[in-house]
Amino acid sequence: MIVGVLGPAGSYSEKAAKKWAKKMEHTDVPVFNYYEDITDTFSAVVNKTVDYGVVPVENSIEGSVGITLDQLFENEITITSEIVVPIEHCLLSKGSLSDIKIILSHPQALAQCRNFLKTHFKNTELRTTGSTSHAATLATEFDEMAAIASRSSAEMYGLKILIPNIQDHNENYTRFLVIKSKYKTSNIKSIPTEHLYKTSIIVYLDQNRPGALYEILEEFAKKEINLTKIESRPSKKALGDYLFYIDFEGSIQDETIKSALDNLGRKVKMLKNLGSYPKDN
Amino acid sequence: MIVGVLGPAGSYSEKAAKKWAKKMEHTDVPVFNYYEDITDTFSAVVNKTVDYGVVPVENSIEGSVGITLDQLFENEITITSEIVVPIEHCLLSKGSLSDIKIILSHPQALAQCRNFLKTHFKNTELRTTGSTSHAATLATEFDEMAAIASRSSAEMYGLKILIPNIQDHNENYTRFLVIKSKYKTSNIKSIPTEHLYKTSIIVYLDQNRPGALYEILEEFAKKEINLTKIESRPSKKALGDYLFYIDFEGSIQDETIKSALDNLGRKVKMLKNLGSYPKDN
Repeated sequence: MIVGVLGPAGSYSEKAAKKWAKKMEHTDVPVFNYYEDITDTFSAVVNKTVDYGVVPVENSIEGSVGITLDQLFENEITITSEIVVPIEHCLLSKGSLSDIKIILSHPQALAQCRNFLKTHFKNTELRTTGSTSHAATLATEFDEMAAIASRSSAEMYGLKILIPNIQDHNENYTRFLVIKSKYKTSNIKSIPTEHLYKTSIIVYLDQNRPGALYEILEEFAKKEINLTKIESRPSKKALGDYLFYIDFEGSIQDETIKSALDNLGRKVKMLKNLGSYPKDN
Repeated sequence: MIVGVLGPAGSYSEKAAKKWAKKMEHTDVPVFNYYEDITDTFSAVVNKTVDYGVVPVENSIEGSVGITLDQLFENEITITSEIVVPIEHCLLSKGSLSDIKIILSHPQALAQCRNFLKTHFKNTELRTTGSTSHAATLATEFDEMAAIASRSSAEMYGLKILIPNIQDHNENYTRFLVIKSKYKTSNIKSIPTEHLYKTSIIVYLDQNRPGALYEILEEFAKKEINLTKIESRPSKKALGDYLFYIDFEGSIQDETIKSALDNLGRKVKMLKNLGSYPKDN
């Protein structure tokens, strides 16, 4: 089983993929293909270069990962799992604190440590990288560079942990999605049915009509379906024109959910079903 | 009148502030205080160092500006206006295309030009700055540096426009908010009533109950109040726990709106009214 993740080795995506593989009790040990960015991971899934891809979708401090939401809309993929991973960002370097002139990391990680950086490194140059582990590899080159990355990246690339746990809020978790091509049969045995399922959809509403979104939520409310997330994202057609990303409890296999989605389909301009998958608790 | 904007001179925030001042027909010409980031602009407003602050809240390609949403929640401010500004990002440099080794800009601008950068500058180093105009000032130092910034930044800092219009989608607009301290009386004459108004609120729901959000939207739907935006943002307490940012048409001066908000207040754990302001068309 080949799994596409953000590279190089040591990224949080890889950590999520390992947690998933363990949980799914695959007899087939995962082999990782590393990609430079989220778009490339999606392309590898769509082209079937990999069996699965693991991508970050949401962080408890910084919110949704915009590029992942856009790619979920643009590609023919199915979500097969979600994995929640605790995030502990550390400041890593070969040098010592007084050497640091440049701090590197993924834009989401920089944002999650915004207050820390502003308080302690107000005038230090910030550079973005494709992943936190990529930042760690670059920081091995010069003493004056530090990376914001995981504890395991420190071990993997021989960097010192100058300051651990530097995110602005202690409760820091990222939710990852496991995706596969819509046209590829899953080789994973079906998950025990006692799992609680979630389903993700994208809808595009009939705009500028009072109550359009309300009518959508009505479908869920009258069937007592619990929404776990609703997020708007620009349609990129015009300012103020949105797609809605909705996650709710239940599987498309359930009669209630199936009928809710049928009704929904008649009320919206577009409905994209991204898949049903076991909830990660 | 002192107005706080992202600095240095030439930022899109300053452009928005100038458009606003012209529109409001102030006899009092605005004097700009420039700030390094959005948090500092909010602080200046709260401390009354400035009369008004102008901050970006939403872009038609990249979506909401997370830090602005967080600051709207955390500070005692009132929104007095919204201003929509067309964005045209250009690649600016002292040098020529073949010299470029480093591209600098604000993270939102880098994200709005993601495909352009990936196609033409895959291996070029990207650095983040506090604003696009800050990137432009830095690019004046070395031929090998380029900034993604506005056309007016090129003129202001004597840079060449190497490539104009580099954002990934042509429809690129940013919505800015004009904010003032909640405890400061506005010295702006009231706006003619023929303007269509918008109101912005933040609500925190009683979680994990099917239909909680639906009951909120019901208040708007049954009064035929048109929602223009609904956006979730992490509460930062736990993954999957959200605040909802809702914009709708109408002013708190209207009886209908007042009564909707009264009913809403009884249904939610927290309701923060950010203010009513004329819509920018």
